[in-house]
Amino acid sequence: MRLLLFSNSTNAGEEYLAYTLPYIEDFLRDTGKEALFIPYAGISVGYERYSRMVASQLSSIGINLTSIHQAGNKAKAIKNASVIIIGGGNTFYLLNLLQNEKLMEPIRKEVLEGKAFIGWSAGSNMACPTICTTNDMPIVEPLSFQSLGFLPFQINPHYTDFVQQGHAGETRDMRLREYILANPGTYVVGLREGSLLQVEGNQLMLKGNKPCKIFRHMQDAFEISPGGDLNFLMG
Amino acid sequence: MRLLLFSNSTNAGEEYLAYTLPYIEDFLRDTGKEALFIPYAGISVGYERYSRMVASQLSSIGINLTSIHQAGNKAKAIKNASVIIIGGGNTFYLLNLLQNEKLMEPIRKEVLEGKAFIGWSAGSNMACPTICTTNDMPIVEPLSFQSLGFLPFQINPHYTDFVQQGHAGETRDMRLREYILANPGTYVVGLREGSLLQVEGNQLMLKGNKPCKIFRHMQDAFEISPGGDLNFLMG
Repeated sequence: MRLLLFSNSTNAGEEYLAYTLPYIEDFLRDTGKEALFIPYAGISVGYERYSRMVASQLSSIGINLTSIHQAGNKAKAIKNASVIIIGGGNTFYLLNLLQNEKLMEPIRKEVLEGKAFIGWSAGSNMACPTICTTNDMPIVEPLSFQSLGFLPFQINPHYTDFVQQGHAGETRDMRLREYILANPGTYVVGLREGSLLQVEGNQLMLKGNKPCKIFRHMQDAFEISPGGDLNFLMG
Repeated sequence: MRLLLFSNSTNAGEEYLAYTLPYIEDFLRDTGKEALFIPYAGISVGYERYSRMVASQLSSIGINLTSIHQAGNKAKAIKNASVIIIGGGNTFYLLNLLQNEKLMEPIRKEVLEGKAFIGWSAGSNMACPTICTTNDMPIVEPLSFQSLGFLPFQINPHYTDFVQQGHAGETRDMRLREYILANPGTYVVGLREGSLLQVEGNQLMLKGNKPCKIFRHMQDAFEISPGGDLNFLMG
């Protein structure tokens, strides 16, 4: 299995997708450059504008991107692409469309058979067993919370320790502690902005310049830095 | 219908439930003081501790509180109480339990027939048609997103304009704009901390010391101050 899963598309103050490009270029070095983009999380942006934005950035590293919303036969487009890319936006909206268009199994099959997969934000939530650790608002009700399930653990994208002063709403850590209480068997990786997970076969690596934070029931949350051993998560 | 719906339980720096007490006392002036508390959102706190915390605070204004988790016959407890109170925590966890224990219809029936209802945070989400404007993490999958539906509009509790510097994750306004795009027929009330909605019959009032912010598809978001006319939301 070959996965590249970013916390976020764009670091604050940087150009769109800028920090992701060197990683994507390296990840696809020995792979075809025909990418299929799934813009379904982009409810605010619109599929057309979203796919053009991404195509424009990725063309700078030699990737030829087409978007699934323009494909006549979507299952065939998934089969023919050399890499599948799912962008961020609203996770519930994305999952609901993938389920309703019956695209979950075709994508799952290709990726489990070795096709490269890239996601960021909501796209990274898709690689997990469920969408239960998304930060997004549940603006539509998907058929189920089951996601593509490439990984046996959950990712929390845009992970932040930040506590808003004078605000009584839950912090991210409180939310993730609720998740592990309700789901005691599952690890969660809090993936900070500017960082990413890469999977090559059974090897899991953290890249970027920040540690990730690991949450599990009955354990103190702990941090692992890029280069540290994360393979216990794949067990 | 008689509803008292708070954005949050506790303002930062204040004692637990402190700002809510004068409103609750006033709301229940001509009502029985036998309250049934539903602590199901309190996954982190635990039902026992949660209900004791709330009982202790409400006893200071003469309310006698029992918790549904200790009731032998839950439907009967709902029927016999003079007021039903649903506390905050995780909205998905709360809704999932209410659905699985088949308590949605009994609560709905009592409140539609005139029984007083008080909620805060996740408890206020319960008064809306769906839980689609909760801020909570979807840590468990409820049977559906349908909520108690006392109101024809959505509430976003803990509403804040705050933008975290240097963070690329969605702001609250971005999330709510996604909601109204996907649900163009529905109003959302962004209810700031320290404020509340009160319903008496068909009259809807905003109380507290902050304006609320109204979101609807194809309209600019706008603010309404306490005392302003909100009855268009009930239409």
